[in-house]
Amino acid sequence: MKIRKQDALNYHTQGQPGKIEVVPTKMLSTQLDLALAYSPGVAEPCKEIAANKDDVYKYTSKGNLVAVISNGTAVLGLGNIGPEASKPVMEGKAVLFKKYAGIDSFDIEIDEEDPDAFIKIVKALEPTFGGVNLEDIKAPECFKIETELREKMHIPIMHDDQHGTAIISSAALLNALEIVGKKIDEIVLVVNGAGAAAVSCSRLYLALGLKRENLIMCDSKGVINATRTNLDATKAEFITTRKLNTLQEAMKGCDVFVGLSVADAITPEDVLNMAKDPIVFALANPNPEIDYNLAKKTRTDLIMGTGRSDHPNQVNNVLGFPYIFRGALDVRATEINEAMKLAAVHALADLAKESVPDIVFQAYGIDRIQFGREYLIPKPLDPRLITTVSPAVAKAAMDSGIARNPITDWGQYHQDLLKRVGIDQKLTSRIIERAKQNPKQIVFAEADHPKILKAAQILQDEKI
Amino acid sequence: MKIRKQDALNYHTQGQPGKIEVVPTKMLSTQLDLALAYSPGVAEPCKEIAANKDDVYKYTSKGNLVAVISNGTAVLGLGNIGPEASKPVMEGKAVLFKKYAGIDSFDIEIDEEDPDAFIKIVKALEPTFGGVNLEDIKAPECFKIETELREKMHIPIMHDDQHGTAIISSAALLNALEIVGKKIDEIVLVVNGAGAAAVSCSRLYLALGLKRENLIMCDSKGVINATRTNLDATKAEFITTRKLNTLQEAMKGCDVFVGLSVADAITPEDVLNMAKDPIVFALANPNPEIDYNLAKKTRTDLIMGTGRSDHPNQVNNVLGFPYIFRGALDVRATEINEAMKLAAVHALADLAKESVPDIVFQAYGIDRIQFGREYLIPKPLDPRLITTVSPAVAKAAMDSGIARNPITDWGQYHQDLLKRVGIDQKLTSRIIERAKQNPKQIVFAEADHPKILKAAQILQDEKI
Repeated sequence: MKIRKQDALNYHTQGQPGKIEVVPTKMLSTQLDLALAYSPGVAEPCKEIAANKDDVYKYTSKGNLVAVISNGTAVLGLGNIGPEASKPVMEGKAVLFKKYAGIDSFDIEIDEEDPDAFIKIVKALEPTFGGVNLEDIKAPECFKIETELREKMHIPIMHDDQHGTAIISSAALLNALEIVGKKIDEIVLVVNGAGAAAVSCSRLYLALGLKRENLIMCDSKGVINATRTNLDATKAEFITTRKLNTLQEAMKGCDVFVGLSVADAITPEDVLNMAKDPIVFALANPNPEIDYNLAKKTRTDLIMGTGRSDHPNQVNNVLGFPYIFRGALDVRATEINEAMKLAAVHALADLAKESVPDIVFQAYGIDRIQFGREYLIPKPLDPRLITTVSPAVAKAAMDSGIARNPITDWGQYHQDLLKRVGIDQKLTSRIIERAKQNPKQIVFAEADHPKILKAAQILQDEKI
Repeated sequence: MKIRKQDALNYHTQGQPGKIEVVPTKMLSTQLDLALAYSPGVAEPCKEIAANKDDVYKYTSKGNLVAVISNGTAVLGLGNIGPEASKPVMEGKAVLFKKYAGIDSFDIEIDEEDPDAFIKIVKALEPTFGGVNLEDIKAPECFKIETELREKMHIPIMHDDQHGTAIISSAALLNALEIVGKKIDEIVLVVNGAGAAAVSCSRLYLALGLKRENLIMCDSKGVINATRTNLDATKAEFITTRKLNTLQEAMKGCDVFVGLSVADAITPEDVLNMAKDPIVFALANPNPEIDYNLAKKTRTDLIMGTGRSDHPNQVNNVLGFPYIFRGALDVRATEINEAMKLAAVHALADLAKESVPDIVFQAYGIDRIQFGREYLIPKPLDPRLITTVSPAVAKAAMDSGIARNPITDWGQYHQDLLKRVGIDQKLTSRIIERAKQNPKQIVFAEADHPKILKAAQILQDEKI
């Protein structure tokens, strides 16, 4: 989707600047409300939590609150633009958490590049949050930061740049391999890029069965092999023993190419040199490692995915992080472990094989789609994502023994998840039905309640 | 107001636990909305801010966002109960910011008691916030923390436990002295307590004209005088040269008693020993240094204030912090300086002398009140507070040269302030009028918009 610069800027400035606000969830109209919410009533939950720290989940917003934390050192494709300039992205992530999973998020931009100091700061924030989504932190520091925070903290933590793309692309990879009838332990896979996402993708593909000797990683200097010097520890993990030096050499005969690098990194010739039924995930944003139409024109047996919403098979992190954190929070998992990530991969892959409900076609204004080369993974606006991925992640946390608050009634949990995102089917359909049958003047009583006033303003603004 | 424990606990658990949620301020319904709010559109405001850091105020929520930060070392009267147990108070403060001044607040509970480490953490959070309200941090560490953060950071910072009570009690003190016809540079004032609030109150009274030799501070060991040993630097600042050792001795003949200590610290005899027209601000919560009715029975010429809402002259911090930060944010002040605090004192004192609008009587269910011994300072629900205190604070920031975004149109600013708290008089009255004349069925279109659904749910819940 082509976005005009001025439209994007206007969107962020219109009305109140920025994309989020913090609102009360409880009534605050009367003196009694205020005495319950603050002094003197607030002393009661404080005393309960002081006596039993876990009660913080009972009396505060902590259990549904995820921090989106960045130091602005690797923002989008823009590089180290600093914490202030990263704030629009972090606010954006916060609203996606709310929209897709009903999770409240504080965006936290930290002015600290030193990994040890950064770790201390985030660790100290643990009482505030139910989970931490690390975002746009540059490699290799991000690996140390996430690893140490996972060790030190007892709430779910995930660096989404690493694991988000890994999880979504893994689901797409499993389904693409199934379609072309190849096994993951037999394919040769080339990853171009050696940043946070590339490393995490590679590790997850290995966990899914890819053979170490069949994984070739390239960075901007070419293939990471034993002749390379000055490799950091993370890159050294991926040294290949194959006698390959350039990306072009690596592409010859490979089954899968995963690009996490820059626009136009590969050519039609590279694609032609790949094995039969090649799989290309060209995930550089906004412009992929090879143009979608150019690549598709090059070979008819190509399966292709990109990071873009205007082509099929969009590898979009929003398919993962909202639902993974939702599941982790709901069982009060003490971390987001490998079992939970793998559960998300399989849940996404399996969901793509189910028949797609009409509401998805309507949301995208498209004709019927079904599992196949052009539909490897679910669409972001698929309402079944929350009820599929979150329970799978929650169950994996329970099965791996890190769920402090296991789910017992899965039917009820399903209903709770729908409510989280406002899909109360009965209410919605009843209201729409009535609105259609009988449009009337809208009258608001309780005009001193801020939410009602806001609703009135919205209706007026939108000329409803 | 007497609050039942179970009512307070239920209030915090009902529906979603806790008192706050984070919601989008922009539409997020269509694919276009999402492309503007997040990738790829979000890159545009990021690039603008990277080029000009100040644009973070234009494209993000920073400019209206205040952190309520605590480490839980001095929570209410409960002492050092830890950061988790302080969370209900910080959330409560966040909702008060929103209700009274339309300010968005993140409550941030930090697991760090060491002042230097705490300072580093808060300093590193500067890119996130437009201002920082420090809360419930114990003395004497709180003095160093606030002082150093004010030096290191370039956004408004205030430790409300220190300055909130100081500002509100100063307004009450000025008016009480006016009523009894005494001058501040002639009175003798006893402060009982030597914590954060007591120190800050004393400093502000001195700034308002109280003579150093007429200020006597007592802690739990008695009068702070030259015979005391092991005094920390802050207490040493208040050593009196008077030959006094006990609170009881200090009370004899004094004009004003300010209690920031514990229940029942003084007796009727102490009150009887005070000068003519004595002023007693017994601010210990929930039970004052002397019971209100007992004190009033002791002397008919007594002027009394407490921290309680069920007696006249409640010294309540909510009269200050929302409006002080509102004014500071609105001119993008680089700090909250002494001139701004004094401006708040005088604005509050002056407002109490104006005739009180009917809406205040209605809010409290009381008969007419007017400036006098029983009404020294405005009531918390007085809607004129925001349009009185915030402009005074904003103007003081401008006059003292620390306003980066001065106000030019004060009439427009007045209107903006009313909108901040949802007092759009025209809209409110029109809607109420129409609702009264012509009650009708309510029909919601746009039922997929979360705010509309929420409004529908509220109306249904409240049987409207």
